Amino acid sequence: MKIQIINGANLNLQGKRDRSVYGTESFDEFIPRLRSLYPDITIDYYQSNIEGEIVSALHSAEGVYDAVLLNAGGYTHTSVVIRDAVAAISTPVVEIHISNIAAREEFRHTTLIGSVAAGSIIGFGLNSYIIGIEAARRL
Amino acid sequence: MKIQIINGANLNLQGKRDRSVYGTESFDEFIPRLRSLYPDITIDYYQSNIEGEIVSALHSAEGVYDAVLLNAGGYTHTSVVIRDAVAAISTPVVEIHISNIAAREEFRHTTLIGSVAAGSIIGFGLNSYIIGIEAARRL
Amino acid sequence: MKIQIINGANLNLQGKRDRSVYGTESFDEFIPRLRSLYPDITIDYYQSNIEGEIVSALHSAEGVYDAVLLNAGGYTHTSVVIRDAVAAISTPVVEIHISNIAAREEFRHTTLIGSVAAGSIIGFGLNSYIIGIEAARRL
Amino acid sequence: MKIQIINGANLNLQGKRDRSVYGTESFDEFIPRLRSLYPDITIDYYQSNIEGEIVSALHSAEGVYDAVLLNAGGYTHTSVVIRDAVAAISTPVVEIHISNIAAREEFRHTTLIGSVAAGSIIGFGLNSYIIGIEAARRL
Amino acid sequence: MKIQIINGANLNLQGKRDRSVYGTESFDEFIPRLRSLYPDITIDYYQSNIEGEIVSALHSAEGVYDAVLLNAGGYTHTSVVIRDAVAAISTPVVEIHISNIAAREEFRHTTLIGSVAAGSIIGFGLNSYIIGIEAARRL
Amino acid sequence: MKIQIINGANLNLQGKRDRSVYGTESFDEFIPRLRSLYPDITIDYYQSNIEGEIVSALHSAEGVYDAVLLNAGGYTHTSVVIRDAVAAISTPVVEIHISNIAAREEFRHTTLIGSVAAGSIIGFGLNSYIIGIEAARRL
Amino acid sequence: MKIQIINGANLNLQGKRDRSVYGTESFDEFIPRLRSLYPDITIDYYQSNIEGEIVSALHSAEGVYDAVLLNAGGYTHTSVVIRDAVAAISTPVVEIHISNIAAREEFRHTTLIGSVAAGSIIGFGLNSYIIGIEAARRL
Amino acid sequence: MKIQIINGANLNLQGKRDRSVYGTESFDEFIPRLRSLYPDITIDYYQSNIEGEIVSALHSAEGVYDAVLLNAGGYTHTSVVIRDAVAAISTPVVEIHISNIAAREEFRHTTLIGSVAAGSIIGFGLNSYIIGIEAARRL
Amino acid sequence: MKIQIINGANLNLQGKRDRSVYGTESFDEFIPRLRSLYPDITIDYYQSNIEGEIVSALHSAEGVYDAVLLNAGGYTHTSVVIRDAVAAISTPVVEIHISNIAAREEFRHTTLIGSVAAGSIIGFGLNSYIIGIEAARRL
Amino acid sequence: MKIQIINGANLNLQGKRDRSVYGTESFDEFIPRLRSLYPDITIDYYQSNIEGEIVSALHSAEGVYDAVLLNAGGYTHTSVVIRDAVAAISTPVVEIHISNIAAREEFRHTTLIGSVAAGSIIGFGLNSYIIGIEAARRL
Amino acid sequence: MKIQIINGANLNLQGKRDRSVYGTESFDEFIPRLRSLYPDITIDYYQSNIEGEIVSALHSAEGVYDAVLLNAGGYTHTSVVIRDAVAAISTPVVEIHISNIAAREEFRHTTLIGSVAAGSIIGFGLNSYIIGIEAARRL
Amino acid sequence: MKIQIINGANLNLQGKRDRSVYGTESFDEFIPRLRSLYPDITIDYYQSNIEGEIVSALHSAEGVYDAVLLNAGGYTHTSVVIRDAVAAISTPVVEIHISNIAAREEFRHTTLIGSVAAGSIIGFGLNSYIIGIEAARRL
Repeated sequence: MKIQIINGANLNLQGKRDRSVYGTESFDEFIPRLRSLYPDITIDYYQSNIEGEIVSALHSAEGVYDAVLLNAGGYTHTSVVIRDAVAAISTPVVEIHISNIAAREEFRHTTLIGSVAAGSIIGFGLNSYIIGIEAARRL
Repeated sequence: MKIQIINGANLNLQGKRDRSVYGTESFDEFIPRLRSLYPDITIDYYQSNIEGEIVSALHSAEGVYDAVLLNAGGYTHTSVVIRDAVAAISTPVVEIHISNIAAREEFRHTTLIGSVAAGSIIGFGLNSYIIGIEAARRL
Repeated sequence: MKIQIINGANLNLQGKRDRSVYGTESFDEFIPRLRSLYPDITIDYYQSNIEGEIVSALHSAEGVYDAVLLNAGGYTHTSVVIRDAVAAISTPVVEIHISNIAAREEFRHTTLIGSVAAGSIIGFGLNSYIIGIEAARRL
Repeated sequence: MKIQIINGANLNLQGKRDRSVYGTESFDEFIPRLRSLYPDITIDYYQSNIEGEIVSALHSAEGVYDAVLLNAGGYTHTSVVIRDAVAAISTPVVEIHISNIAAREEFRHTTLIGSVAAGSIIGFGLNSYIIGIEAARRL
Repeated sequence: MKIQIINGANLNLQGKRDRSVYGTESFDEFIPRLRSLYPDITIDYYQSNIEGEIVSALHSAEGVYDAVLLNAGGYTHTSVVIRDAVAAISTPVVEIHISNIAAREEFRHTTLIGSVAAGSIIGFGLNSYIIGIEAARRL
Repeated sequence: MKIQIINGANLNLQGKRDRSVYGTESFDEFIPRLRSLYPDITIDYYQSNIEGEIVSALHSAEGVYDAVLLNAGGYTHTSVVIRDAVAAISTPVVEIHISNIAAREEFRHTTLIGSVAAGSIIGFGLNSYIIGIEAARRL
Repeated sequence: MKIQIINGANLNLQGKRDRSVYGTESFDEFIPRLRSLYPDITIDYYQSNIEGEIVSALHSAEGVYDAVLLNAGGYTHTSVVIRDAVAAISTPVVEIHISNIAAREEFRHTTLIGSVAAGSIIGFGLNSYIIGIEAARRL
Repeated sequence: MKIQIINGANLNLQGKRDRSVYGTESFDEFIPRLRSLYPDITIDYYQSNIEGEIVSALHSAEGVYDAVLLNAGGYTHTSVVIRDAVAAISTPVVEIHISNIAAREEFRHTTLIGSVAAGSIIGFGLNSYIIGIEAARRL
Repeated sequence: MKIQIINGANLNLQGKRDRSVYGTESFDEFIPRLRSLYPDITIDYYQSNIEGEIVSALHSAEGVYDAVLLNAGGYTHTSVVIRDAVAAISTPVVEIHISNIAAREEFRHTTLIGSVAAGSIIGFGLNSYIIGIEAARRL
Repeated sequence: MKIQIINGANLNLQGKRDRSVYGTESFDEFIPRLRSLYPDITIDYYQSNIEGEIVSALHSAEGVYDAVLLNAGGYTHTSVVIRDAVAAISTPVVEIHISNIAAREEFRHTTLIGSVAAGSIIGFGLNSYIIGIEAARRL
Repeated sequence: MKIQIINGANLNLQGKRDRSVYGTESFDEFIPRLRSLYPDITIDYYQSNIEGEIVSALHSAEGVYDAVLLNAGGYTHTSVVIRDAVAAISTPVVEIHISNIAAREEFRHTTLIGSVAAGSIIGFGLNSYIIGIEAARRL
Repeated sequence: MKIQIINGANLNLQGKRDRSVYGTESFDEFIPRLRSLYPDITIDYYQSNIEGEIVSALHSAEGVYDAVLLNAGGYTHTSVVIRDAVAAISTPVVEIHISNIAAREEFRHTTLIGSVAAGSIIGFGLNSYIIGIEAARRL
């Protein structure tokens, strides 16, 4: 099984940024730990701050991965084009959020991606990705 | 580990109601299957169509269960009192939805419960409960 | 033919409450009169102030009644779970209102039930139930 | 007893237009059938695509008819002047809709006419007119 | 000086309709009285229930009348085309209302015509037309 | 007959401020001209930039004047207390606006005063006050 | 004098729940203290988490109590049926809130009950009930 | 090929009305020019200021024309009945606008017709009709 | 104990203004009666129609009074500066309303002051001030 | 004549993505066909998934092309910066949409680009580009 | 160069009020410090809690000062009349805010003054005034 | 002291684009002039049309610059990710706008960045950057 994690804007700062919300573990630390938890799954990691590159990464996932875990970061709330990319590909996409977006600012309550995703995992910290793998295995 | 599943209104019809949205497996079939998947976890099941009984069930979970999986059904979108009950107890509550509420009618896009839950699992069919167990184990 | 009338909250006060809006005849008086008008139809009557009990009553109507006349009272404007129950059963449900809800407070203009009902009869006083029987006979 | 049916815009296409919503019987077929169901009632029929002519027809109904069945079609949702005409005459007006307007586009959920009508019959197909006659007889 | 009064829908019922709001004098009585108050002014009167005919009447006023007094009735709140006709002609148009539209239903608070009129006279009963003549004389 | 003109904030700048909207004649010039037009009417003039002083002036008008012409300026759109003062006194108050407020910024489209005034004269430049006298004479 | 206190959902947790907002005294402690403050008044206490039971309790208060102190808890903001019950009975109902609902989440700013209550006491902690007794004595 | 142009309210003033927005060429001049550009196409022209007549014209187009170019003028933004007529006929309707409605007043940004039209041509002046012919030829 | 009552705009008319809403007792009559009810409390009275003077009065209350009873009248719904003054001082402020603001016009449903007040007493007529004294004594 | 086609996000999937909405022809097939239809026009093609690159492409078009056909895809509904780029250059830009955006999700009904474009062609499938060329030739 | 600082409501409490937001330095301390920083500029200081006095102060600034620094305090968000005064005078007005109004309550996000000011300086504490002087020198 | 200026989309056109709004000086001319005004400050300049590159530039500023002057251009009104980047870094960010965004289109009135910036300088033309340097020096 092959899964791609696609992370959006500012997630390269994970572990350094607003630790009370996002925790202290960086993706450089987390991804190896995640792979060791699921040794039978190929887990590729991609991060970009650029909306259009996330669109392209989603396009490229088609036919290559069995599932995508997508945390679009702040683009979650504003990006029609990422939504369209999720809808355009046949690869199932699991929406992931580290923080509980419903408990934050009003503009974070809307997700354009949720309605076209296979499902959503919200608010469990970095564990959301682990739970996302669990979800992806059951799609 | 002890986990309680609390299901809200109309979930007693699961397996019979609108099968294209909710699937064909009833909770009478699913709960034993779920228990067999997690033999080391005590999984109790409660369902009520009455909002106030769900409030009381949440109150009763405090100090008894390690976590609650709560699918409030249609009350998700309207119930301040269930939200208040979730916030009032210290037991972590994982919000569960079978269907992708963001892809349905406008009035199902709002969740009053999400912002006070430990996290949310949305849209994976009955698998949402399995994934919820996975989430609860990692809280 | 078997028809069930399900009345929601505060309708037990009919005949005593705000008579300029609702009239002076109680359901204790009206139901026998209604049955005498339609001697060939079995007309059962159920009233509850509790939202979840109305949900359960709708579930129980399936396979037992040919039609339900539902006046959910104040729940009409707020209850997603009653709406879901109406949509979940195959028994046709005719929405009934004694008063003209469109001529009253703004929050009474919305009906969550109307869009999933077989049809709606609004504003004819207790005659709305008689007209509802006429409608049910023609479904 | 004398009743006038007033139909608004596009209802001349009934039976030809969007049959899954409106059914296949035209008013040329339906009106004679309706009259045969109620031989003791004079039922006059008027249809116009022009908003102002519907206003005038309502004015003319005063003192001539015992009741009006009004299906204003698309004008239901936008016409202040038809509403004003209904309110201006003392003849009771029963609002009729063939389709379930609450289950269609958002802009069809509002009825300007409902709040000044004697009552409303919504969503029973052409039977709405028959039920409307039943309602008119009981005003 | 030549002035045309253009009255919209339902104003043919003036004097008969909702007398607590509109008063008891009809236009058949009022117009001669108005003419006698201003013998030096030619006052023509036109009324239609049809929106498009009001548009046409406004077109026809250009080059013929020095001013128009326009009471569009219920079209005031909904008619873009009457607004466009007022804006399209160079003849000044004084907006007239018998009742105080700001004190009535919410949907009567908006006037599409006001912003393109030469000015507005609102709420003085039939005197609004007399005051409108006074205004027109000073344009 | 005694009439008081009450002008609100910034109207002391009339004739100097934004002349394309308000014209070039100041109230120092206009009031004498107005008095000369109506020699039989006592016309008193009051202006204040302070909302609460306008409230007090309205209170003081009761029993002293036959009518008030009130141009509350920018307070028109925001002042509940001036509205309440207008409603609290029995002296009829004619609302006056020099410019066409419906043709200006969105926040000028709302008038809190209109619904409690005897009537409104809007958009005729300083002539609005003359027309207002005409209206006051006919109350 | 006989007064009934009716408390809604989650108020059974008072003293344990979110103490910075609601304080530490439970109703088991407070009610006896309240009775000792007003020995000449019969004070009955009722609490339910179920909306419809609160409706029924209000119905039952009619003719039995001189006043009701109603703290509907989270139902305050969503319950049309409790509002209708308050309006349906002739017993005066004083709305009570422990916390300052206007200083909390947006959805707590709306009270459906306030407009049909005899009056409201908001934000004085458990003292709101004492003040409510003072208010009830003066109705 | 047979194409009908249907123009709505105020378009009879084209060439005279607000020339900076609509240009100076009238339809009396433009239609012959258009026909000379497309000698192989029968181009019929109809204009009415009356909403209901546009509805009737659309009904009449069915089975007679291969396509309709519809510029409903101000009715574009308010007319449910024209929308319904467009949807009711099988003849493809191309929506035409002379001016760029998105660059004008807020209320012109909404088009009720667009969503049921075969497509829309907006903002090219009278050339919109020529481009509309090009579009109609390719349907 | 020292308490200051601060009354806002139009409250100088109490007893004369809209007696069905506000009652017939003036503050000149009520304040002495209030003082006689609480002879051990110094009760000072201040009223102004000017928003900024109410702000200044609140500033002056700091360190002088133990509590303020504030009825800002119509400023309740619009005044950010009075809200800021209430929040800026450490003296507790009890919000008072004579009428039930939730049962009146929509614009009276919002209170900017409530969320920064120590608590609110709404709708008990002049008794609201007496109840407010009771509340102030328990702060 | 030189025309540049600029396509936004996800349009590289044309022909593969949601064929019931967008059709089956890819731009690799369509562009040569388009060029063969207009041999006398130089037609350049650019596509990017990145919003800022579309901005840059518009900047580069100035002085090089006679017109731009811009289909910004999902950016149409959210991008202020593309709108600003269209407004900033003097090259006329024709807005193109393959699907009928007014018939799709609510968030696709808004176009930020339309109001600054030379005109818009919406809903004709890939023919929209051909019609766009026809429009560009007539600018 | 002559500059006037005009401060609105509650700014007389600066240094005492909510120090975490506004800091601890009062204007009695700050103004002399500001003057010492800019010895070549005449800096006059005016503060009022009364909206209308701020209007009058702005009127008086015309022709006397080269620029005004205006911090209207809470009036920023509600005052049309201060906005009108700023727009009415030719003296440039720089809008000043001590706190970051965009980071505070929703109702502080709107500024009626900003759109008619020469520019705005927001959120730098009392330094906003120093920066405002720097801005005023460059107008 | 080291300051970085980060400019967003379309600001590379400064001096050429809409000169009545933005002025005629380009950044190629302005930046050297700015450096000569502040010879003791290192001023670096970065511009990108790509949202994600602005995010990355903000990340890179941390620990390198003492302050950032950020003019996000059109992204100001839509970009959650730039907002998140500003909030994520500890380097203070001064928000800069050349034009008065509050005086332009409605969609430019919202700034997502303002609430997380150290402060904002709006509407002084290119002088906003000079004033921004003055502000940055005082942080």
